[in-house]
Amino acid sequence: MSDTLTRLEATIAQRLTASPDASYVAKLHAKGLAKIAQKLGEEATETVIAALTGDEAELVGEAADLLFHLMVLLAEKGVALEHVLAELDRREGTSGIAEKAARSQD
Amino acid sequence: MSDTLTRLEATIAQRLTASPDASYVAKLHAKGLAKIAQKLGEEATETVIAALTGDEAELVGEAADLLFHLMVLLAEKGVALEHVLAELDRREGTSGIAEKAARSQD
Amino acid sequence: MSDTLTRLEATIAQRLTASPDASYVAKLHAKGLAKIAQKLGEEATETVIAALTGDEAELVGEAADLLFHLMVLLAEKGVALEHVLAELDRREGTSGIAEKAARSQD
Amino acid sequence: MSDTLTRLEATIAQRLTASPDASYVAKLHAKGLAKIAQKLGEEATETVIAALTGDEAELVGEAADLLFHLMVLLAEKGVALEHVLAELDRREGTSGIAEKAARSQD
Repeated sequence: MSDTLTRLEATIAQRLTASPDASYVAKLHAKGLAKIAQKLGEEATETVIAALTGDEAELVGEAADLLFHLMVLLAEKGVALEHVLAELDRREGTSGIAEKAARSQD
Repeated sequence: MSDTLTRLEATIAQRLTASPDASYVAKLHAKGLAKIAQKLGEEATETVIAALTGDEAELVGEAADLLFHLMVLLAEKGVALEHVLAELDRREGTSGIAEKAARSQD
Repeated sequence: MSDTLTRLEATIAQRLTASPDASYVAKLHAKGLAKIAQKLGEEATETVIAALTGDEAELVGEAADLLFHLMVLLAEKGVALEHVLAELDRREGTSGIAEKAARSQD
Repeated sequence: MSDTLTRLEATIAQRLTASPDASYVAKLHAKGLAKIAQKLGEEATETVIAALTGDEAELVGEAADLLFHLMVLLAEKGVALEHVLAELDRREGTSGIAEKAARSQD
Protein backbone atom coordinates (compact mmCIF):
# COMPACT_ATOMS: atom_id res chain seq x y z
CA MET A 1 0.00 0.00 0.00
CA SER A 2 2.82 2.37 0.86
CA ASP A 3 4.62 1.78 -2.39
CA THR A 4 1.88 3.39 -4.47
CA LEU A 5 1.72 6.68 -2.58
CA THR A 6 5.49 6.90 -2.01
CA ARG A 7 6.12 6.36 -5.70
CA LEU A 8 3.32 8.69 -6.73
CA GLU A 9 4.63 11.46 -4.48
CA ALA A 10 8.10 11.13 -6.03
CA THR A 11 6.65 11.15 -9.55
CA ILE A 12 4.55 14.25 -8.85
CA ALA A 13 7.52 16.09 -7.33
CA GLN A 14 9.58 15.24 -10.41
CA ARG A 15 6.91 16.29 -12.91
CA LEU A 16 5.85 19.47 -11.13
CA THR A 17 8.59 21.42 -12.85
CA ALA A 18 8.64 19.46 -16.12
CA SER A 19 7.41 20.96 -19.39
CA PRO A 20 3.65 21.65 -19.32
CA ASP A 21 3.49 20.04 -22.75
CA ALA A 22 4.80 16.74 -21.45
CA SER A 23 2.94 16.33 -18.17
CA TYR A 24 -0.52 16.92 -16.71
CA VAL A 25 1.05 17.69 -13.33
CA ALA A 26 3.34 20.31 -14.90
CA LYS A 27 0.33 21.80 -16.71
CA LEU A 28 -1.52 22.13 -13.40
CA HIS A 29 1.58 23.66 -11.80
CA ALA A 30 1.83 26.19 -14.63
CA LYS A 31 -1.80 27.21 -14.04
CA GLY A 32 -1.06 27.85 -10.39
CA LEU A 33 -2.32 27.03 -6.91
CA ALA A 34 -5.88 28.34 -7.34
CA LYS A 35 -6.40 26.07 -10.34
CA ILE A 36 -5.05 23.04 -8.46
CA ALA A 37 -7.32 23.84 -5.50
CA GLN A 38 -10.24 24.17 -7.92
CA LYS A 39 -9.50 20.72 -9.35
CA LEU A 40 -9.46 19.28 -5.82
CA GLY A 41 -12.88 20.78 -5.18
CA GLU A 42 -14.21 19.38 -8.47
CA GLU A 43 -12.92 15.88 -7.76
CA ALA A 44 -14.46 15.98 -4.29
CA THR A 45 -17.86 16.85 -5.78
CA GLU A 46 -17.46 14.03 -8.29
CA THR A 47 -16.56 11.60 -5.49
CA VAL A 48 -19.67 12.68 -3.55
CA ILE A 49 -21.85 12.11 -6.63
CA ALA A 50 -20.22 8.75 -7.46
CA ALA A 51 -20.78 7.57 -3.87
CA LEU A 52 -24.46 8.53 -4.04
CA THR A 53 -25.36 7.53 -7.58
CA GLY A 54 -22.50 5.63 -9.23
CA ASP A 55 -21.27 2.04 -9.17
CA GLU A 56 -18.10 0.81 -7.45
CA ALA A 57 -15.87 1.40 -10.49
CA GLU A 58 -16.96 5.05 -10.68
CA LEU A 59 -16.33 5.60 -6.97
CA VAL A 60 -12.89 3.98 -7.24
CA GLY A 61 -12.06 6.20 -10.23
CA GLU A 62 -13.23 9.41 -8.56
CA ALA A 63 -11.54 8.56 -5.23
CA ALA A 64 -8.30 7.98 -7.17
CA ASP A 65 -8.74 11.37 -8.90
CA LEU A 66 -9.36 13.05 -5.53
CA LEU A 67 -6.34 11.42 -3.88
CA PHE A 68 -4.16 12.29 -6.89
CA HIS A 69 -5.14 15.97 -6.89
CA LEU A 70 -4.75 16.17 -3.09
CA MET A 71 -1.17 14.95 -3.57
CA VAL A 72 -0.57 17.50 -6.34
CA LEU A 73 -1.92 20.25 -4.04
CA LEU A 74 0.35 19.13 -1.19
CA ALA A 75 3.34 18.97 -3.56
CA GLU A 76 2.55 22.45 -4.90
CA LYS A 77 2.55 23.76 -1.31
CA GLY A 78 5.73 21.82 -0.44
CA VAL A 79 3.97 19.69 2.17
CA ALA A 80 5.13 16.06 2.46
CA LEU A 81 2.33 13.44 2.58
CA GLU A 82 4.30 12.06 5.55
CA HIS A 83 3.13 15.08 7.61
CA VAL A 84 -0.50 14.39 6.79
CA LEU A 85 -0.11 10.71 7.69
CA ALA A 86 1.69 11.66 10.90
CA GLU A 87 -1.30 13.86 11.78
CA LEU A 88 -3.61 10.88 11.16
CA ASP A 89 -1.35 8.73 13.37
CA ARG A 90 -1.46 11.33 16.11
CA ARG A 91 -5.27 11.33 16.07
CA GLU A 92 -5.33 7.54 15.84
CA GLY A 93 -3.61 7.50 19.21
CA THR A 94 -6.93 8.68 20.65
CA SER A 95 -9.55 5.94 20.46
CA GLY A 96 -13.12 5.07 21.52
CA ILE A 97 -14.65 7.91 23.56
CA ALA A 98 -11.41 9.83 23.27
CA GLU A 99 -11.66 9.69 19.48
CA LYS A 100 -15.16 11.07 19.65
CA ALA A 101 -14.12 13.92 21.93
CA ALA A 102 -11.11 14.76 19.79
CA ARG A 103 -13.29 15.02 16.71
CA SER A 104 -16.44 16.48 18.21
CA GLN A 105 -15.55 19.96 17.00
CA ASP A 106 -16.04 18.88 13.40
CA MET B 1 3.74 5.29 5.10
CA SER B 2 1.60 2.22 4.44
CA ASP B 3 1.21 1.44 8.12
CA THR B 4 -0.84 4.54 8.81
CA LEU B 5 -3.46 3.96 6.13
CA THR B 6 -3.59 0.18 6.62
CA ARG B 7 -4.11 0.63 10.35
CA LEU B 8 -6.59 3.46 9.85
CA GLU B 9 -8.63 1.39 7.40
CA ALA B 10 -8.83 -1.48 9.92
CA THR B 11 -9.80 0.90 12.72
CA ILE B 12 -12.53 2.53 10.65
CA ALA B 13 -13.95 -0.87 9.59
CA GLN B 14 -14.03 -1.92 13.23
CA ARG B 15 -15.68 1.28 14.47
CA LEU B 16 -18.22 1.58 11.68
CA THR B 17 -20.63 -0.71 13.49
CA ALA B 18 -19.68 0.30 17.05
CA SER B 19 -22.01 2.29 19.28
CA PRO B 20 -22.59 5.83 17.96
CA ASP B 21 -22.04 7.05 21.52
CA ALA B 22 -18.53 5.69 21.60
CA SER B 23 -17.14 6.53 18.17
CA TYR B 24 -17.22 9.41 15.69
CA VAL B 25 -17.04 6.91 12.82
CA ALA B 26 -20.04 4.98 14.19
CA LYS B 27 -21.92 8.26 14.59
CA LEU B 28 -21.27 9.10 10.92
CA HIS B 29 -22.35 5.58 9.91
CA ALA B 30 -25.57 5.97 11.89
CA LYS B 31 -26.31 9.22 10.04
CA GLY B 32 -25.91 7.43 6.71
CA LEU B 33 -24.11 7.73 3.39
CA ALA B 34 -25.44 11.18 2.41
CA LYS B 35 -24.08 12.67 5.65
CA ILE B 36 -20.68 11.04 5.14
CA ALA B 37 -20.56 12.34 1.56
CA GLN B 38 -21.51 15.79 2.86
CA LYS B 39 -18.61 15.70 5.34
CA LEU B 40 -16.24 14.78 2.50
CA GLY B 41 -17.46 17.79 0.54
CA GLU B 42 -17.00 20.06 3.56
CA GLU B 43 -13.48 18.84 4.24
CA ALA B 44 -12.56 19.35 0.58
CA THR B 45 -13.77 22.97 0.76
CA GLU B 46 -11.77 23.47 3.96
CA THR B 47 -8.68 21.98 2.31
CA VAL B 48 -9.10 24.36 -0.65
CA ILE B 49 -9.39 27.33 1.72
CA ALA B 50 -6.44 26.21 3.87
CA ALA B 51 -4.29 25.83 0.75
CA LEU B 52 -5.18 29.35 -0.41
CA THR B 53 -5.21 31.26 2.87
CA GLY B 54 -3.90 29.07 5.71
CA ASP B 55 -0.47 28.09 7.01
CA GLU B 56 1.14 24.65 6.67
CA ALA B 57 -0.34 23.32 9.92
CA GLU B 58 -3.85 24.19 8.78
CA LEU B 59 -3.34 22.53 5.40
CA VAL B 60 -1.94 19.40 7.06
CA GLY B 61 -4.93 19.29 9.41
CA GLU B 62 -7.51 19.76 6.65
CA ALA B 63 -5.79 17.28 4.32
CA ALA B 64 -5.84 14.74 7.18
CA ASP B 65 -9.56 15.42 7.70
CA LEU B 66 -10.20 15.00 3.97
CA LEU B 67 -8.23 11.73 3.76
CA PHE B 68 -9.95 10.44 6.90
CA HIS B 69 -13.45 11.14 5.60
CA LEU B 70 -12.58 9.70 2.17
CA MET B 71 -11.61 6.48 3.97
CA VAL B 72 -14.86 6.51 5.98
CA LEU B 73 -16.82 6.99 2.73
CA LEU B 74 -14.99 4.09 1.06
CA ALA B 75 -15.57 1.88 4.12
CA GLU B 76 -19.26 2.80 4.18
CA LYS B 77 -19.50 1.73 0.53
CA GLY B 78 -17.46 -1.45 1.15
CA VAL B 79 -14.64 -0.34 -1.15
CA ALA B 80 -11.10 -1.29 -0.09
CA LEU B 81 -8.51 1.50 -0.26
CA GLU B 82 -6.39 -1.10 -2.05
CA HIS B 83 -8.66 -0.75 -5.11
CA VAL B 84 -8.17 3.00 -5.21
CA LEU B 85 -4.40 2.59 -4.92
CA ALA B 86 -4.44 -0.11 -7.62
CA GLU B 87 -6.24 2.39 -9.86
CA LEU B 88 -3.53 4.98 -9.16
CA ASP B 89 -0.88 2.33 -9.97
CA ARG B 90 -2.64 1.48 -13.20
CA ARG B 91 -2.66 5.13 -14.31
CA GLU B 92 0.95 5.57 -13.23
CA GLY B 93 1.82 2.76 -15.59
CA THR B 94 0.18 4.54 -18.48
CA SER B 95 1.64 7.99 -17.89
CA GLY B 96 5.28 7.07 -17.31
CA ILE B 97 6.76 4.29 -19.42
CA ALA B 98 10.06 4.73 -17.58
CA GLU B 99 8.46 4.34 -14.15
CA LYS B 100 6.56 1.35 -15.42
CA ALA B 101 9.76 -0.31 -16.64
CA ALA B 102 11.55 0.42 -13.37
CA ARG B 103 8.64 -0.99 -11.40
CA SER B 104 8.56 -4.24 -13.38
CA GLN B 105 12.14 -4.97 -12.27
CA ASP B 106 11.12 -4.81 -8.59
CA MET C 1 -33.83 42.78 -10.11
CA SER C 2 -36.77 40.41 -10.48
CA ASP C 3 -36.83 40.73 -14.24
CA THR C 4 -33.47 39.07 -14.68
CA LEU C 5 -34.28 35.94 -12.72
CA THR C 6 -37.86 35.68 -13.97
CA ARG C 7 -36.67 35.95 -17.57
CA LEU C 8 -33.75 33.60 -16.98
CA GLU C 9 -36.03 30.99 -15.42
CA ALA C 10 -38.34 31.13 -18.46
CA THR C 11 -35.39 30.89 -20.85
CA ILE C 12 -33.92 27.89 -19.03
CA ALA C 13 -37.30 26.08 -18.97
CA GLN C 14 -37.62 26.67 -22.70
CA ARG C 15 -34.11 25.50 -23.55
CA LEU C 16 -34.07 22.48 -21.26
CA THR C 17 -35.70 20.33 -23.92
CA ALA C 18 -34.15 22.05 -26.96
CA SER C 19 -31.55 20.34 -29.14
CA PRO C 20 -28.30 19.72 -27.23
CA ASP C 21 -26.47 21.03 -30.30
CA ALA C 22 -28.11 24.41 -30.05
CA SER C 23 -28.11 25.13 -26.33
CA TYR C 24 -25.77 24.75 -23.36
CA VAL C 25 -28.78 24.22 -21.07
CA ALA C 26 -30.10 21.42 -23.34
CA LYS C 27 -26.63 19.87 -23.40
CA LEU C 28 -26.57 19.82 -19.59
CA HIS C 29 -30.09 18.34 -19.52
CA ALA C 30 -29.02 15.61 -21.95
CA LYS C 31 -26.11 14.72 -19.66
CA GLY C 32 -28.51 14.33 -16.74
CA LEU C 33 -29.04 15.44 -13.16
CA ALA C 34 -25.73 14.15 -11.76
CA LYS C 35 -23.80 16.23 -14.33
CA ILE C 36 -25.83 19.36 -13.53
CA ALA C 37 -25.24 18.82 -9.80
CA GLN C 38 -21.53 18.37 -10.52
CA LYS C 39 -21.45 21.70 -12.40
CA LEU C 40 -23.12 23.39 -9.40
CA GLY C 41 -20.43 21.99 -7.12
CA GLU C 42 -17.69 23.17 -9.48
CA GLU C 43 -19.09 26.68 -9.73
CA ALA C 44 -19.38 26.88 -5.94
CA THR C 45 -15.69 25.95 -5.59
CA GLU C 46 -14.81 28.59 -8.19
CA THR C 47 -16.88 31.19 -6.32
CA VAL C 48 -15.07 30.32 -3.08
CA ILE C 49 -11.70 30.69 -4.80
CA ALA C 50 -12.68 33.95 -6.53
CA ALA C 51 -13.86 35.40 -3.20
CA LEU C 52 -10.55 34.50 -1.55
CA THR C 53 -8.06 35.27 -4.31
CA GLY C 54 -9.79 36.99 -7.22
CA ASP C 55 -10.83 40.52 -8.02
CA GLU C 56 -14.42 41.84 -8.12
CA ALA C 57 -14.97 40.97 -11.78
CA GLU C 58 -13.97 37.34 -11.18
CA LEU C 59 -16.28 37.06 -8.18
CA VAL C 60 -19.17 38.59 -10.15
CA GLY C 61 -18.55 36.13 -13.00
CA GLU C 62 -18.34 33.07 -10.74
CA ALA C 63 -21.38 34.14 -8.69
CA ALA C 64 -23.32 34.51 -11.94
CA ASP C 65 -22.17 31.02 -13.02
CA LEU C 66 -23.23 29.60 -9.64
CA LEU C 67 -26.65 31.28 -9.74
CA PHE C 68 -27.16 30.16 -13.34
CA HIS C 69 -26.37 26.51 -12.61
CA LEU C 70 -28.50 26.58 -9.45
CA MET C 71 -31.41 27.69 -11.65
CA VAL C 72 -30.68 24.93 -14.18
CA LEU C 73 -30.62 22.39 -11.32
CA LEU C 74 -33.94 23.66 -9.97
CA ALA C 75 -35.47 23.58 -13.47
CA GLU C 76 -34.19 20.04 -14.03
CA LYS C 77 -35.90 19.00 -10.77
CA GLY C 78 -39.07 20.92 -11.64
CA VAL C 79 -38.73 23.28 -8.67
CA ALA C 80 -39.81 26.90 -9.23
CA LEU C 81 -37.37 29.56 -8.01
CA GLU C 82 -40.47 31.11 -6.42
CA HIS C 83 -40.46 28.29 -3.84
CA VAL C 84 -36.86 28.97 -2.89
CA LEU C 85 -37.57 32.71 -2.56
CA ALA C 86 -40.70 31.95 -0.51
CA GLU C 87 -38.51 29.90 1.83
CA LEU C 88 -36.13 32.87 2.16
CA ASP C 89 -39.13 35.13 2.87
CA ARG C 90 -40.35 32.72 5.52
CA ARG C 91 -36.97 32.82 7.29
CA GLU C 92 -36.73 36.58 6.81
CA GLY C 93 -39.85 36.83 8.96
CA THR C 94 -37.64 35.82 11.86
CA SER C 95 -35.14 38.59 12.67
CA GLY C 96 -32.54 39.63 15.22
CA ILE C 97 -32.25 37.07 18.00
CA ALA C 98 -34.96 35.00 16.38
CA GLU C 99 -32.90 34.80 13.18
CA LYS C 100 -29.95 33.59 15.17
CA ALA C 101 -32.00 30.91 16.91
CA ALA C 102 -33.63 29.79 13.68
CA ARG C 103 -30.26 29.35 12.02
CA SER C 104 -28.25 28.06 14.97
CA GLN C 105 -28.57 24.48 13.76
CA ASP C 106 -26.30 25.29 10.82
CA MET D 1 -39.64 37.82 -7.05
CA SER D 2 -37.40 40.86 -6.84
CA ASP D 3 -38.76 41.93 -3.50
CA THR D 4 -37.36 38.96 -1.67
CA LEU D 5 -33.77 39.39 -2.82
CA THR D 6 -33.82 43.20 -2.62
CA ARG D 7 -35.11 43.03 0.94
CA LEU D 8 -32.75 40.22 1.89
CA GLU D 9 -29.76 42.15 0.53
CA ALA D 10 -30.72 45.20 2.62
CA THR D 11 -31.23 43.05 5.72
CA ILE D 12 -27.86 41.33 5.30
CA ALA D 13 -26.06 44.66 4.79
CA GLN D 14 -27.68 45.98 7.95
CA ARG D 15 -26.84 42.92 10.07
CA LEU D 16 -23.29 42.47 8.81
CA THR D 17 -21.99 44.92 11.38
CA ALA D 18 -24.52 44.16 14.13
CA SER D 19 -23.54 42.39 17.34
CA PRO D 20 -22.48 38.78 16.70
CA ASP D 21 -24.66 37.80 19.67
CA ALA D 22 -27.78 39.08 17.99
CA SER D 23 -27.42 37.98 14.39
CA TYR D 24 -26.24 34.93 12.45
CA VAL D 25 -24.99 37.22 9.66
CA ALA D 26 -22.96 39.29 12.13
CA LYS D 27 -21.55 36.09 13.61
CA LEU D 28 -20.40 34.97 10.15
CA HIS D 29 -18.92 38.44 9.50
CA ALA D 30 -17.02 38.24 12.79
CA LYS D 31 -15.55 34.89 11.76
CA GLY D 32 -14.31 36.39 8.51
CA LEU D 33 -14.33 35.83 4.77
CA ALA D 34 -12.76 32.35 4.77
CA LYS D 35 -15.51 31.08 7.10
CA ILE D 36 -18.24 32.60 4.92
CA ALA D 37 -16.68 31.04 1.82
CA GLN D 38 -16.52 27.71 3.65
CA LYS D 39 -20.24 27.93 4.46
CA LEU D 40 -20.99 28.60 0.78
CA GLY D 41 -19.04 25.47 -0.16
CA GLU D 42 -20.88 23.42 2.45
CA GLU D 43 -24.30 24.62 1.31
CA ALA D 44 -23.41 23.82 -2.31
CA THR D 45 -22.49 20.25 -1.32
CA GLU D 46 -25.76 19.95 0.59
CA THR D 47 -27.69 21.26 -2.43
CA VAL D 48 -25.97 18.68 -4.66
CA ILE D 49 -26.88 15.89 -2.22
CA ALA D 50 -30.47 17.10 -1.80
CA ALA D 51 -30.90 17.22 -5.59
CA LEU D 52 -29.62 13.65 -5.93
CA THR D 53 -31.17 11.97 -2.90
CA GLY D 54 -33.62 14.31 -1.18
CA ASP D 55 -37.23 15.33 -1.72
CA GLU D 56 -38.44 18.70 -3.03
CA ALA D 57 -38.64 20.30 0.43
CA GLU D 58 -35.02 19.41 1.16
CA LEU D 59 -33.86 20.81 -2.18
CA VAL D 60 -35.83 24.04 -1.61
CA GLY D 61 -34.29 24.36 1.87
CA GLU D 62 -30.73 23.75 0.69
CA ALA D 63 -31.11 26.01 -2.36
CA ALA D 64 -32.36 28.77 -0.01
CA ASP D 65 -29.33 28.19 2.26
CA LEU D 66 -27.01 28.36 -0.75
CA LEU D 67 -28.58 31.56 -2.09
CA PHE D 68 -28.52 33.13 1.37
CA HIS D 69 -24.83 32.39 1.93
CA LEU D 70 -23.96 33.57 -1.59
CA MET D 71 -25.60 36.89 -0.71
CA VAL D 72 -23.69 37.07 2.59
CA LEU D 73 -20.45 36.38 0.70
CA LEU D 74 -21.22 39.12 -1.84
CA ALA D 75 -22.11 41.55 0.95
CA GLU D 76 -18.89 40.72 2.81
CA LYS D 77 -16.96 41.53 -0.37
CA GLY D 78 -18.99 44.68 -1.01
CA VAL D 79 -20.41 43.37 -4.29
CA ALA D 80 -24.02 44.34 -5.09
CA LEU D 81 -26.26 41.48 -6.25
CA GLU D 82 -27.23 43.91 -9.02
CA HIS D 83 -23.80 43.37 -10.61
CA VAL D 84 -24.27 39.61 -10.64
CA LEU D 85 -27.73 39.97 -12.19
CA ALA D 86 -26.37 42.43 -14.75
CA GLU D 87 -23.77 39.82 -15.71
CA LEU D 88 -26.57 37.25 -16.15
CA ASP D 89 -28.48 39.79 -18.28
CA ARG D 90 -25.41 40.39 -20.40
CA ARG D 91 -25.04 36.66 -21.09
CA GLU D 92 -28.79 36.31 -21.64
CA GLY D 93 -28.37 38.69 -24.52
CA THR D 94 -26.59 35.86 -26.29
CA SER D 95 -29.06 33.10 -27.06
CA GLY D 96 -29.42 29.82 -28.98
CA ILE D 97 -26.18 28.98 -30.81
CA ALA D 98 -24.64 32.14 -29.44
CA GLU D 99 -25.39 30.99 -25.90
CA LYS D 100 -23.68 27.73 -26.62
CA ALA D 101 -20.61 29.44 -27.98
CA ALA D 102 -20.46 31.90 -25.10
CA ARG D 103 -20.55 29.09 -22.58
CA SER D 104 -18.54 26.46 -24.41
CA GLN D 105 -15.50 27.16 -22.27
CA ASP D 106 -17.23 25.69 -19.24
